[in-house]
Amino acid sequence: MDRLEIRISGSGGQGILMMGIIIAESSIANGNNAIQSQSYGPEARGGASKCEVIIDDNEIYFPKVKSPDYLVALTQTAADKYLADITPETVIIVDSDVKVPSNIKNKVYTLPIIDTAINVINKRITANIVCLGAFYEITKFVDVEVLKKTILGRIPAGHEYINMDAFEAGRELIKEVV
Amino acid sequence: MDRLEIRISGSGGQGILMMGIIIAESSIANGNNAIQSQSYGPEARGGASKCEVIIDDNEIYFPKVKSPDYLVALTQTAADKYLADITPETVIIVDSDVKVPSNIKNKVYTLPIIDTAINVINKRITANIVCLGAFYEITKFVDVEVLKKTILGRIPAGHEYINMDAFEAGRELIKEVV
Repeated sequence: MDRLEIRISGSGGQGILMMGIIIAESSIANGNNAIQSQSYGPEARGGASKCEVIIDDNEIYFPKVKSPDYLVALTQTAADKYLADITPETVIIVDSDVKVPSNIKNKVYTLPIIDTAINVINKRITANIVCLGAFYEITKFVDVEVLKKTILGRIPAGHEYINMDAFEAGRELIKEVV
Repeated sequence: MDRLEIRISGSGGQGILMMGIIIAESSIANGNNAIQSQSYGPEARGGASKCEVIIDDNEIYFPKVKSPDYLVALTQTAADKYLADITPETVIIVDSDVKVPSNIKNKVYTLPIIDTAINVINKRITANIVCLGAFYEITKFVDVEVLKKTILGRIPAGHEYINMDAFEAGRELIKEVV
């Protein structure tokens, strides 16, 4: 795999960091190299949280996202901030409540991620795993069984079924679109 | 606070990453900037896991550890790897089972971290929180109440008391030394 740069953004408590950790850990389990990082600055106190993951077959010398291949934004605040830092090729994945300015001509997936977590899974905190399911279905960045095993290794015991349901519900959001 | 560089190492499953996340999150809650990163490469598959945290009052432009102020190593494999990359000023914190070569003249804290988790707390997976307690007591890098609140926000519900016990047991390891 060539270098893949992913920026995931949202608000604190949405499980952004855990989503990044699972993407990075499943990539290494899949045989790639990966680096996951989260910066906390004044903007973190203001509500926009960001996690970056870089995946590469080769060694990763520069650990920051330069030109994101994927931007995930789960809140308007996060989208407003990070849409300023995309390339024409960046694929954008946003929650349905996020408005993407009409001058942005990128490929945009607008998906009911938080709504699915609340109303289908009945557990808002699974929004990150719903999002991960959609992200997987768009990118196929890793073998799906490796990814599921990584999810199960990271979630608290007793929450396996609901998180697997959330993952599959996220995949369905893309299958329905395509 | 001037730039503080922390490298935490051990084996997979020791909660290295969670320790780094808690240090970074408590630092931002304390009013500093912080960046936490974890690289996964071939060495991660071999058993040495590493998490880096940088804390600074100012903006953090270079997100990698250059000259660690603190190196934490919970396994011999991790120590062997990362002791190669210290400065004369790096303060070293290792588990009691780790042998530090006698030619290393740095300040070294050799502490029964894993033994305390197993035999005092009766829960091996709290070793990272024991370690965090010791790290706090050495560095006082943050207000202790901010740190405790961050720990409680990151551990699974129902594990509050045992983790607070682990944190205090870690602090005691230093109080006994001093």
